[in-house]
Amino acid sequence: MSAPVHHLPFADLEVLLQQIFERHGTSAEVARSLAYNCASAQRDGAHSHGVFRMPAYVSTLNSGWVDGKAQPQVEDVASGYVRVDAQGGFAQPALAAARELLVSKARSAGIAVLAIHNSHHFAALWPDVEPFAEEGLVALSVVNSMTCVVPHGAQQPLFGTNPIAFAAPCAGNDPIVFDMATSAIAHGDVQIAARKGELLPEGMGVDSAGEPTCDPKAILAGGALLPFGGHKGSALSMMVELLAAALTGGNFSFEFDWSQHPGAKTPWTGQLIIVIDPAKSVGNRFAERSRELVRQMQAVGLQRMPGERRFRERELSAREGVMVTAEEWAGLQALAG
Amino acid sequence: MSAPVHHLPFADLEVLLQQIFERHGTSAEVARSLAYNCASAQRDGAHSHGVFRMPAYVSTLNSGWVDGKAQPQVEDVASGYVRVDAQGGFAQPALAAARELLVSKARSAGIAVLAIHNSHHFAALWPDVEPFAEEGLVALSVVNSMTCVVPHGAQQPLFGTNPIAFAAPCAGNDPIVFDMATSAIAHGDVQIAARKGELLPEGMGVDSAGEPTCDPKAILAGGALLPFGGHKGSALSMMVELLAAALTGGNFSFEFDWSQHPGAKTPWTGQLIIVIDPAKSVGNRFAERSRELVRQMQAVGLQRMPGERRFRERELSAREGVMVTAEEWAGLQALAG
Repeated sequence: MSAPVHHLPFADLEVLLQQIFERHGTSAEVARSLAYNCASAQRDGAHSHGVFRMPAYVSTLNSGWVDGKAQPQVEDVASGYVRVDAQGGFAQPALAAARELLVSKARSAGIAVLAIHNSHHFAALWPDVEPFAEEGLVALSVVNSMTCVVPHGAQQPLFGTNPIAFAAPCAGNDPIVFDMATSAIAHGDVQIAARKGELLPEGMGVDSAGEPTCDPKAILAGGALLPFGGHKGSALSMMVELLAAALTGGNFSFEFDWSQHPGAKTPWTGQLIIVIDPAKSVGNRFAERSRELVRQMQAVGLQRMPGERRFRERELSAREGVMVTAEEWAGLQALAG
Repeated sequence: MSAPVHHLPFADLEVLLQQIFERHGTSAEVARSLAYNCASAQRDGAHSHGVFRMPAYVSTLNSGWVDGKAQPQVEDVASGYVRVDAQGGFAQPALAAARELLVSKARSAGIAVLAIHNSHHFAALWPDVEPFAEEGLVALSVVNSMTCVVPHGAQQPLFGTNPIAFAAPCAGNDPIVFDMATSAIAHGDVQIAARKGELLPEGMGVDSAGEPTCDPKAILAGGALLPFGGHKGSALSMMVELLAAALTGGNFSFEFDWSQHPGAKTPWTGQLIIVIDPAKSVGNRFAERSRELVRQMQAVGLQRMPGERRFRERELSAREGVMVTAEEWAGLQALAG
């Protein structure tokens, strides 16, 4: 990969990405939502979900597989339950459309769930949960993706990389946020390793014959990923299929057929978000207790909290600008036309 | 371990365990709740949570550390939120006391949470969630335990084994149920391996000097466990601390001090249970969709679903009686007096 050469203000990157999305067929609202998400990932050093993804976003939009102008339909189902039909569009604008209702239900009922279906999710998951923690809420989200993970004990892939993201407030600190693929490695990281010509650690994936391999290109050429942590990660991946697809009314990772849409890249599935209001807990001291846990984790020698790297990168980007490689910069200019 | 010699009807084992609990200071109600849980684990072949646990139950009751006659106090906090103060007793009777309210809230609000604190949990977690799935509900539970797991990247133990359990209905099938420690191995399984003189696989734990070991006795003698799946399992274990302790008002795994109660064995922490009503989902087809996922998992070669072994053992126990070794049987007779 080329040396980084461009450092630009976050807002400038956001505007550029918005232009690209709009130029390739999204509404202004959808462009704003996706550009913010993608620019945030780049800013926070989460490069596999940063501007690296833009060519694939453009490809999937051009293929007609996803509706960049979809108007999400929000349904108020019960005092703790909101459903959104994303109408074949992206999940982020569907979440944005339901967010206020979801938060108001969580604060009133103590817990609320948002079930999004008929949606495409192609981004990091932590940007979906972190803002809840910034409002003092606890959030958990799961999204299923596309078949590329062999269930533990099975012979062929079935699950998606099926991430789980969690966010919780922490008094006087950045929120505690993690976002983990239930696969041993994220798909974007395999693509990046393949591009760089690097080998992966053992236990990440299998080749097209189902044999273990450390070659990311073999994984991408008809191979598959393995779940993290053996049967436990596999059970969690199954849980993500059940919550993000069966419960929302979305497709399982193995169900959608994009063969009629050459260039399609985005999984057409579902997403579940659970939001809890810790103000309902005994003594209403959640954020202080969370701070105490962090303190104790540091006391036993933990150098870096889960998600902490992102906040460090974010500070750096705020001081020095968001870093984009020369190659990426040229690519973005070309996509912006 | 001795060869199995006793096969007894489930109901007989339950009555025997009830007698033991009552003889050692629990109320009849608490005895019923714990005996059902423990006998179920034995019946389902989950031996590390079966009658193997009875001497420790008796020890902890005799130590005065747990109140076997506690009356849980249930608080109806919001349309989706129930709190229980277990009053220093066991978590299972606290769940039993709040269960009906929790289910009614889940059915009405679509989702509800039960936050138990000031509670001792010393049992398998799947018996807490499986009954919800039998009623057509989806349930997720977490409970923190006692410091014995080194966070990934840290030098000393802090977290408990902190299990996550999940249950979901599946049309025409046993429910889908899993219960996993977020440690690489459950504490009870380390104790069983130590008793049998067996070595553990690599990556399960460290000795008292913090060095990797496969010797279960070294782990028990001042050593500690590792999380499953590296930093991901560690992040999940942290999440369990936040949900089961910070959110409920319970103790973190590292907070309680039982030094004044020789023989104390049970972690005095908290438990969270989230229950979702899939009847609120689009088209209300959750159980059929869940069945479809199972079908596809079998189609890619999965021989055994998560939790399936327990249902097979349960069938066997129903036909042949619940299996107890001669040594265990003698131990139970002695505890029953």
